[in-house]
Amino acid sequence: MRLAMIGLGKMGGNMVRRLRRHGIEIVGYDRDSGIVSGLADECGMLAAGSVADAVGQLTAPKLVWLMLPAGAPTESQIEELAPLLGSGDIVIDGGNSNYKDSRRRGAWLAERGIGFMDAGTSGGIWGLENGYCLMVGATPEVAKIVEPVLKALAPAPDRGWAHVGPVGAGHYAKMIHNGIEYGMMQALAEGLDLLKGKQEFHYDLAQIAELWRHGSVVRSWLLDLTAEALKGDQALANIAPYVADSGEGRWTAIDAIEQGIPAPVLTLALQMRFVSQDEKGYGYRLLSLMRNAFGGHAVKSGGS
Amino acid sequence: MRLAMIGLGKMGGNMVRRLRRHGIEIVGYDRDSGIVSGLADECGMLAAGSVADAVGQLTAPKLVWLMLPAGAPTESQIEELAPLLGSGDIVIDGGNSNYKDSRRRGAWLAERGIGFMDAGTSGGIWGLENGYCLMVGATPEVAKIVEPVLKALAPAPDRGWAHVGPVGAGHYAKMIHNGIEYGMMQALAEGLDLLKGKQEFHYDLAQIAELWRHGSVVRSWLLDLTAEALKGDQALANIAPYVADSGEGRWTAIDAIEQGIPAPVLTLALQMRFVSQDEKGYGYRLLSLMRNAFGGHAVKSGGS
Repeated sequence: MRLAMIGLGKMGGNMVRRLRRHGIEIVGYDRDSGIVSGLADECGMLAAGSVADAVGQLTAPKLVWLMLPAGAPTESQIEELAPLLGSGDIVIDGGNSNYKDSRRRGAWLAERGIGFMDAGTSGGIWGLENGYCLMVGATPEVAKIVEPVLKALAPAPDRGWAHVGPVGAGHYAKMIHNGIEYGMMQALAEGLDLLKGKQEFHYDLAQIAELWRHGSVVRSWLLDLTAEALKGDQALANIAPYVADSGEGRWTAIDAIEQGIPAPVLTLALQMRFVSQDEKGYGYRLLSLMRNAFGGHAVKSGGS
Repeated sequence: MRLAMIGLGKMGGNMVRRLRRHGIEIVGYDRDSGIVSGLADECGMLAAGSVADAVGQLTAPKLVWLMLPAGAPTESQIEELAPLLGSGDIVIDGGNSNYKDSRRRGAWLAERGIGFMDAGTSGGIWGLENGYCLMVGATPEVAKIVEPVLKALAPAPDRGWAHVGPVGAGHYAKMIHNGIEYGMMQALAEGLDLLKGKQEFHYDLAQIAELWRHGSVVRSWLLDLTAEALKGDQALANIAPYVADSGEGRWTAIDAIEQGIPAPVLTLALQMRFVSQDEKGYGYRLLSLMRNAFGGHAVKSGGS
């Protein structure tokens, strides 16, 4: 089995390593040629100097796995790839693309006889050792051909991966997964923040997070990671109170609106990240202004 | 080691079974004498016909573990117990009491020379086999005496239990644990509800929940239970869309207000349960009335 991997960053690079451990031949390409030669030396990946070179080293049916940022990078790569591929070849998008883009791209490739799979991939930097959780959308025919690759990437051949539906269903399921992740993270953070605030009890947050890992209802992988991270330092003075968000949390909140199905906690977890990102605090300045205007309440000066 | 257990319901009964497996002698009392004789026959628990009888079968320092509903039942039991106990004896409240009550009771018992421990206990019906997660508040002296009991109840002697602070700190930590639980549950439910709504993908929710258990970021014990439960039936037509709440979710939301620390997701998860409990829907009737009043929008009739 041979597969081309396009995009060898944190995710793509580790996926190449894991696939090589399972004896799958990989032709790898990244626009950073140093990464390509490094992985080739490290794990016997076949180096490619361009996408066309990568495709040229495959035999039919050619399988090309994209592990690129969602949006324009994935879009332009698929446009560049299509003329290089023929009927029966397959493009797999393992990135965090919007499922609507995946459906459109799947249909566009299908018109050219090219198969498509949207493979929602979870597991982050731990995936190399633990395996990746893969939610894939594709036709049954495409899913069957890619199956050996999925089994090698997953935590075990019989678990942690599934063909969940037609094209688009993989990225949609991954989007919802990330939406849930936002909510679970926010719940844990709020609870630990309340414990931290209760100064009269002098809690050791590392002790409590570790304690909860065993036998409690909230035990979870996120708690495992949090407990481990708190062991070093729990003042967190060197971590700014700023939380980034990526597309999927936003898309989940938008999808809830499009479906007209309530998802208030997932939506609010996202909005709380926006609050953390809001350095200007203009909304709060306005509230302070209003309190002053109607009640003469003091306005704190400061900020910029 | 011998301990009296007062209250032999779902939690107390299983805790007796687990303690007996660890060779700890238990004197058990419940107001339902059938439960008492049943447990005595089953696992060699020493039966007591009254609280006084239970205390009479102990030697100093007498340890009495209460596993009763929070509020009046626990309050009156402690009032009844105090005259039966002497200096150096210890009352342990393993129920879900409000930490403010626990602090008050601890101080009241301390005036009488009686020790007190608030032991927040998580694990539900799975605790018998998996062990209970125990967050305990007490003086170091009291914690030391009760330690062998905690080690037997916990998943293992060296994990899943901890002396987290002074009297009150155990029940406060348990309260926050349950607050987090509300948030995590709501996040999972909202995400799965969106998947269910996306009818074009015909998702098998049992498949996806099972898939996420392996390698994903949202893997958790709550997901394990959900995946298992969905295997049977995922239409859920026989489960009413009504979610009860107990004290601790409410106390967490109140505590966030008292501390002035934001906990919007934990608060909203609780509020969503209130929405589910609201059979009258009077708030929604009012909204419909207003839409009709200003815009002439149609009002649906029905409900009662």
